Formats: sequence, C-alpha cells, structure tokens
Amino acid sequence: MNIMIVGFGTVGQSLAQLLLGYRDFLKKAYGMVVRVVAIVDSKGAAVSQRGLDLDMALRCKREHGTVAKMPSVGSEMSALDVLRSVEADVLVEATHTNLMNGEPGMTNIVNALQLGLNVVTVNKGPLALAMPMLKEMAEHRKLALKFSGSVGGGLPVLAFAKECAMGDRIVKVEGVLNGTTNYILTRMEEGLGFDEALAEAQEKGYAERDPTLDISGMDTACKLVILANEVLGKRVTLKDLKIEGIAEIKPEDIKMAKSSGKVIRLIGVAEESGVFVKPLAVDRSDPLAVKYAYNAVTLTLENSGRHTITGKGAGGRETATAIIRDLISIKERLIGYKIV
Amino acid sequence: MNIMIVGFGTVGQSLAQLLLGYRDFLKKAYGMVVRVVAIVDSKGAAVSQRGLDLDMALRCKREHGTVAKMPSVGSEMSALDVLRSVEADVLVEATHTNLMNGEPGMTNIVNALQLGLNVVTVNKGPLALAMPMLKEMAEHRKLALKFSGSVGGGLPVLAFAKECAMGDRIVKVEGVLNGTTNYILTRMEEGLGFDEALAEAQEKGYAERDPTLDISGMDTACKLVILANEVLGKRVTLKDLKIEGIAEIKPEDIKMAKSSGKVIRLIGVAEESGVFVKPLAVDRSDPLAVKYAYNAVTLTLENSGRHTITGKGAGGRETATAIIRDLISIKERLIGYKIV
Repeated sequence: MNIMIVGFGTVGQSLAQLLLGYRDFLKKAYGMVVRVVAIVDSKGAAVSQRGLDLDMALRCKREHGTVAKMPSVGSEMSALDVLRSVEADVLVEATHTNLMNGEPGMTNIVNALQLGLNVVTVNKGPLALAMPMLKEMAEHRKLALKFSGSVGGGLPVLAFAKECAMGDRIVKVEGVLNGTTNYILTRMEEGLGFDEALAEAQEKGYAERDPTLDISGMDTACKLVILANEVLGKRVTLKDLKIEGIAEIKPEDIKMAKSSGKVIRLIGVAEESGVFVKPLAVDRSDPLAVKYAYNAVTLTLENSGRHTITGKGAGGRETATAIIRDLISIKERLIGYKIV
Repeated sequence: MNIMIVGFGTVGQSLAQLLLGYRDFLKKAYGMVVRVVAIVDSKGAAVSQRGLDLDMALRCKREHGTVAKMPSVGSEMSALDVLRSVEADVLVEATHTNLMNGEPGMTNIVNALQLGLNVVTVNKGPLALAMPMLKEMAEHRKLALKFSGSVGGGLPVLAFAKECAMGDRIVKVEGVLNGTTNYILTRMEEGLGFDEALAEAQEKGYAERDPTLDISGMDTACKLVILANEVLGKRVTLKDLKIEGIAEIKPEDIKMAKSSGKVIRLIGVAEESGVFVKPLAVDRSDPLAVKYAYNAVTLTLENSGRHTITGKGAGGRETATAIIRDLISIKERLIGYKIV
C-alpha cells in the first residue's frame, strides 16, 4: 500500500515512527506493507516512488524543520504537485485544524478524492465544515474516507458505535469530547477558580496557548458534527449546531451541582430533536462524569441501553494508531474481505 | 438462517421478542431472515422446520411453563433429539450457568459442533470450564463459536477489544465484571455495612437469592476466563485463576482507601504475568471506578493507551441484542463478506 502524508507535525511524525517500529508486525498480522511515497509539510515535500527512508525523514524534520531538505528526494513541491506526480493509494491528511475555511486540509482532501486516492484524515476542520459533501464525494467515486483519529484520538469511538449498532438502533450520542475543558471543570470541583484551572491545564500541556477553541465549545462541536453524521446519519455541519462553552461557568454553579450529587460537564449531544454543545449537570455516578483530561462517549441504544467508551482522547502516538486502524480497514476494502 | 434456541428463560424469551419486533428491520438492514425451527426448554421442545410461531411460543411458555405444550409442534424431545432431527444453521445456547461441569450447556455445544452447527452461547459455564477445547473444536470444523452475550450482557466488550487491537497490541485487560459486587462496594462507600448492602442489592434484583457466585468472585472469574482467551489469546480455564471475592472487605478497608482518594473494586486482571480476581484499590478518577451496577472493562494497549468501555452489564433484552449481533456476524461469515 502506497501512502502520502500531508502535514508532518506531531501526528504525522508519530505515524512515521509507528510505521518504522511496527513494520514486521503489520506485515505478519495483516499482510500489510506500507510504503510512504511522499511526505509534504508547510515548507515543501520529499518524494520517492520506491518509498522514503522514514528514519532519515524524521531526522531531517528534526534538524531542518522540513523534509524538503532531504538529499535527492526533497524539493519545494506543493501537496497538489505531489498528488499529481506520485502513485499512491491513500492520502493521510494531518495538517492543522482550521475552522474558518478548513484549509489547507479541505483542498488536499478534495484533490485527493478527485485524483482517485482514498483518504485518511485526522483533521477536524474539513469534516466539521463539509462532512456531508466530502462523504458524498468519496461514495460517488467509490473511495474510502476514514477519520477515526478525528474523534477521541486513539479511542476507537466510531468503530465502537458501528459495532454497538449491529442489530440495534442508536438513538442518542452524548460526549465529553474535549480534555482541556474537562480538566478545568474537574479542578474547579476541587476548589480552583476558572483562571487558575485554565493556567494549570496549559502548564500540563492539555490546553493550547490560545485555548479559545476549547473553552468556547468549538472543538467539542467539531467532533460532535463528525459523530452526528457518522453514527446517526445526520447531514449536519458546524453551522447547524447550538454551541455554548464553559466561559460562563462560575464556582457557585459547580457548588450547587455538587450539593445535589451532580457535576458539570461540557457535553455534546446529538439526537433526533437536535445537535448541541452545552455545559450540563450529570449525576456523579454517570459514566459521562469522567475526570481530568478523559474523554467519554455514551451511546443510547433502543434495546441494549447506554454504552460508554472512555479514555484519554488525545496524543500524537495515540492518534497515529487510529490512522493505522484506518489503513488496515482500507487494505481490507482493497482486497475485498475482513482480516481477522 | 435457521436457528434453534435451547434454554427458554429470560434471555431466550427476550430473543424471541426481539426477533418478532425486529423482523422487518433485520431483513431490511442485514438481509437477514431468522427462522426459529426449534425451542427446547427443561421440560421438552417445540419443533417446526418451517419456523415456529414465536408469539404462540411465548404465550405457551407463560401459560404452561414450557413450549412442550404447544399444539401440534410441542413434544418431550430432548435437545439432542432435536439437534438430530431439525436442519439448523445455528444453536443458540441459553441454558443456566453451571460451574460444576457446565451441563447441560457443555453437551449441547459439543453436540451441535459435532453435528455441524454454528454456536452462539450466552452461557458462561462451558466457556469458563473448557474454552480452549471448545474453540479448537469449532475451528477444526470451520464453524463459528460466538459468545458476545457472555461478558457484559449487551455491552460489546469482545468486539470492542477486537477493534481496539487493530494495528496495536493489547497488553492488559482489567474489568469490573459483576454488577452485584460493585453495587455492594459502592453502597458500602456510602456508609452501609456489607449485609445491609447485600440485602439491598437482592431487593433491587441485582443479586441472586444465592449470591455466592457473585460474592466469591466466581462470576467475575468466568468472564475473565473468556476475556483472557479471546482478547489475549491465553489458553486458560477457571482452575488456572487465583480468585478472591469481597466477603472479607471491611468498612475500615473502604474508609482507608477513601482517605487516599481511592475506592475498592472487585477486579479481574489478565496480563502476561497472570490471570486473577481480587479486590483492588483504584483511584477515584480511574474509569474502572464505576458505581452501582455498572460494569467496566479497561484495555491497556501498547501505543494507544488505556481504553475503557462501561455500561450496565446485564438484563435479558440487553443480552439478547448481543445474540443478534452474533447471528449477524455468522450471517456475514456464511455469505463471505462484511455487511456495512
């Protein structure tokens, strides 16, 4: 399987490391040989139809900040140049999330699908803004569009939902989908003020330097769009959601919830009657009442009740394993059967 | 798909109800028409190669305590008689759990495999006592042996593990696998004594009248055997496990754990170095620290960290949905591809 990686930050580099370390395992367990024929970063590209030396690519990125400086294979080619000139089965899109217009991920994904490549993306931007259109485009061309890593990092939320739904019907999806805000709310329960809790989250590396996307509920909303489309078959994008963040939460609100055995969590909810993000009081014993940087997604099924999946929803290596899962499922699709 | 149901208690009857209510859905979504050609209970059987009237079977069971009284199709045939005389693709084994010798489930499963039937079982007894042998038998005959409902009721624990493991390696499985003991421990945290908490669990219908299997850790151990075999590929049975229950847990132990931010949970652990059941102190914020009658299973993966699945792990209807999932996957196996 030939892949090209566009975006070579934490996740892209973690993927390269995993592919190096797990080469034998993937071949033995899944008959899968992954050849990285191109890597594109913001300053250029490295291309080799015979497969790049990933060790060297990682070193070059570390030392020079770009793979464009790799001897003999590096150049200033753009993602589109590369898409047109290499033969690849899959584009792995791992550029940064942009909620204004989804770029550069949006163009990368559209170009790849138009040129006949399957797509694995961990970039929430294009999905949050245009998931129904992108899915249609892929279906029309009979190509795979996979995005396991876009919700919950390494946590297989989407696959879990698909499995749960077999022979039953999912009627509601609720999720604590953002580790930063959950960390802040948990620390506020423990007595900190909002600003203190935020500062601590930043110190621990959970929050970005500009935590607006987290606090405002936008990051949660992006993931909720993906869940609503994929799990409930809703055709929604970011603009269809009512979004409320945690900026207005006061220590008093948290105390009041506590006095009735509840905690406040920023929850994304998708059900028949609507899709929204809102801080909600949930029972302390509810599986959604996860603490600190944990994520949780609860599915309510018609017959089998409420099922929750919980884990740390972030991290480069974790998200890279989700990409590997997607690559395996594309391989299964290419060969026409399920590897078990 | 022709199935025979052996054991027509809560789970068997729930399955019949689901098959009635979901007939159109299963046909439309999975192209699956399930014909129940025989039902066997402890007093006899009802058999019809053209498919039994499930409404009538449920009514007859309710009114007479057995399907053997069904007009024209009822008789005193045994499970083995029926296995030999009907044409079925799948045996659904739903008799009661027996940890002495696994009967009557053990004989039912072995006979079915020998006669060329695929098997779906929700009965933990035969699996806890002889899972490696039963799996080998099924593999040797190229038949499916499915048991989703045996761990976690409707919670798709085994499928979740399989999905998580794709492209990664599961190194440890930990589980809160028994709702009764977890209910007792949670209530003890809230100030009740052991006996009070147990009485309450019985009142609420969580604990059996004889709760020995729960309290002693045996029920947890049975489920752990299944997880260890299926998820970690270990060849173990009940006799290979060290099992410690919660009978010795004192209110003081729980208080002491609490003072250091921990709670005591009865946990089944399977890892490279061993498989055991034991009350352990876990951090209050740990996803395994679920409350009341919840179950939780945590998988530790080499690259993608700790993933937990949580839900109420019991109930007739919930467990019956797990049987439906298994039937769908057997259908996929019969037709040779994955229905998506």
